[in-house]
Amino acid sequence: MVSDEQALAEQSAKVMWDNDAASRALGMELVSVAPGRAVVSMTVRADMVNGWDVCHGGLIASLADSAFAVACNSHGQVTVAAGFDVTFLESGRLGDVLVATAEERALRGRSGLYDVTVRRGDESGETVVAEFRGRSRSLGRSIEG
Amino acid sequence: MVSDEQALAEQSAKVMWDNDAASRALGMELVSVAPGRAVVSMTVRADMVNGWDVCHGGLIASLADSAFAVACNSHGQVTVAAGFDVTFLESGRLGDVLVATAEERALRGRSGLYDVTVRRGDESGETVVAEFRGRSRSLGRSIEG
Amino acid sequence: MVSDEQALAEQSAKVMWDNDAASRALGMELVSVAPGRAVVSMTVRADMVNGWDVCHGGLIASLADSAFAVACNSHGQVTVAAGFDVTFLESGRLGDVLVATAEERALRGRSGLYDVTVRRGDESGETVVAEFRGRSRSLGRSIEG
Amino acid sequence: MVSDEQALAEQSAKVMWDNDAASRALGMELVSVAPGRAVVSMTVRADMVNGWDVCHGGLIASLADSAFAVACNSHGQVTVAAGFDVTFLESGRLGDVLVATAEERALRGRSGLYDVTVRRGDESGETVVAEFRGRSRSLGRSIEG
Repeated sequence: MVSDEQALAEQSAKVMWDNDAASRALGMELVSVAPGRAVVSMTVRADMVNGWDVCHGGLIASLADSAFAVACNSHGQVTVAAGFDVTFLESGRLGDVLVATAEERALRGRSGLYDVTVRRGDESGETVVAEFRGRSRSLGRSIEG
Repeated sequence: MVSDEQALAEQSAKVMWDNDAASRALGMELVSVAPGRAVVSMTVRADMVNGWDVCHGGLIASLADSAFAVACNSHGQVTVAAGFDVTFLESGRLGDVLVATAEERALRGRSGLYDVTVRRGDESGETVVAEFRGRSRSLGRSIEG
Repeated sequence: MVSDEQALAEQSAKVMWDNDAASRALGMELVSVAPGRAVVSMTVRADMVNGWDVCHGGLIASLADSAFAVACNSHGQVTVAAGFDVTFLESGRLGDVLVATAEERALRGRSGLYDVTVRRGDESGETVVAEFRGRSRSLGRSIEG
Repeated sequence: MVSDEQALAEQSAKVMWDNDAASRALGMELVSVAPGRAVVSMTVRADMVNGWDVCHGGLIASLADSAFAVACNSHGQVTVAAGFDVTFLESGRLGDVLVATAEERALRGRSGLYDVTVRRGDESGETVVAEFRGRSRSLGRSIEG
């Protein structure tokens, strides 16, 4: 049986993802969602790299930002990104499948903190491409389908 | 007469921009470059927004990241982004022209710090959409054309 | 004649500084305050360094944080630090006078962004020790004397 | 039996802590160290608070910074803080025992990333006061006793 919290997370993610033309245009796929958690993947395409076949850092951050958005909206409240910090550790290369795993680190009132790790290959991939920390702010109203 | 530093900045920017398929695919335009400084613009397209016509935050960060990259490579040394922090202040909306202005804040050895302000409209636009601070690291070799 | 905004900034700073035993214990001095701006200085003492006579980074951040606090409370509203980012560029050494200059970068609703530069010597000192960016949040009530 | 890595971590921490007059002056205690990990505690004193008995945010960051320093030097290489980001979640109050737990998140070449959580009470305390992320840079030489 699916818990109410899990059902709410899935419903919120569906509303968000259906409306997110930007993430779809970047070829992102929503792998999974749970309360305070989300996994999103993206394959590095030719229109995402520079002349040395290295993925634009902003697009790696965009992948992490999408996973962060799903995770921080998973409690059913409309929640926006106030900002984030990202550190780049390895390059994303042409053809790489990058997987971003977002986890809630802290919640206090309407403010939240989410850590997102971007890896090559899959969720358990050993190569970490980037570490991202997002700051969220709830607007105090429910997500409507 | 153009100074040697300015000529080097323009030459470095040309090499970078010619190779940057990702920035081009996002419709970015390099407005200007100078030693330690760069301006890049981007129009918010339908494939960059969500269902409420608000630009994906990661793409606003990508615009700032591109301006940062041109600015930190303007001294002619191959320089990569170690990471960045971004704060979102206003939404970018469908059709908005966003302009990112990057300025060098500090240089110490191979490490640099660049502030990028993203505004609506133009470089002197009053509405600030985002404030970005990038951390760069020079690899210690010259940019080759 | 002193403007109302300047008078409010000075009054708010006085209330804050009188109550700030921590900044006083670290020997900090409030040099100046203006709307959205503050300058605070601190001399690096023997109880602030390690065995190589280098100032503890957290104390350099504390100096910047104090200047940030005065600046973000200068509009007369009780305002707290939500967080900050700091980059260390040069060491603070035993006996150095460090001067932190805080300037408002952005205000949007109850959220603010302040840049603080910590220099050696004085406000126009050429050696930058640290660059700090503080994120503030107003609580929506006036500072009471 | 203690592993070589653990012995190196303890030896490196001893050298650092013996030389760290600043952390001692703030009453910090080194609770434990392991490869890539450190725990440091501090009691909030009357000279660390403002008039509302709330601990100066910079001193909470100083506690986290000390734990970060021990953790990033635990591999026996002289390693300095390049910078850090901190988010404040709850106040530290007069008399609180604050405990900072630092854990290595990523290492790549000479660059490292460390997460530090500051809690009230003890390492398993439920109230998180602050979340800190430190960026380190190794100088490429061994710590000498």
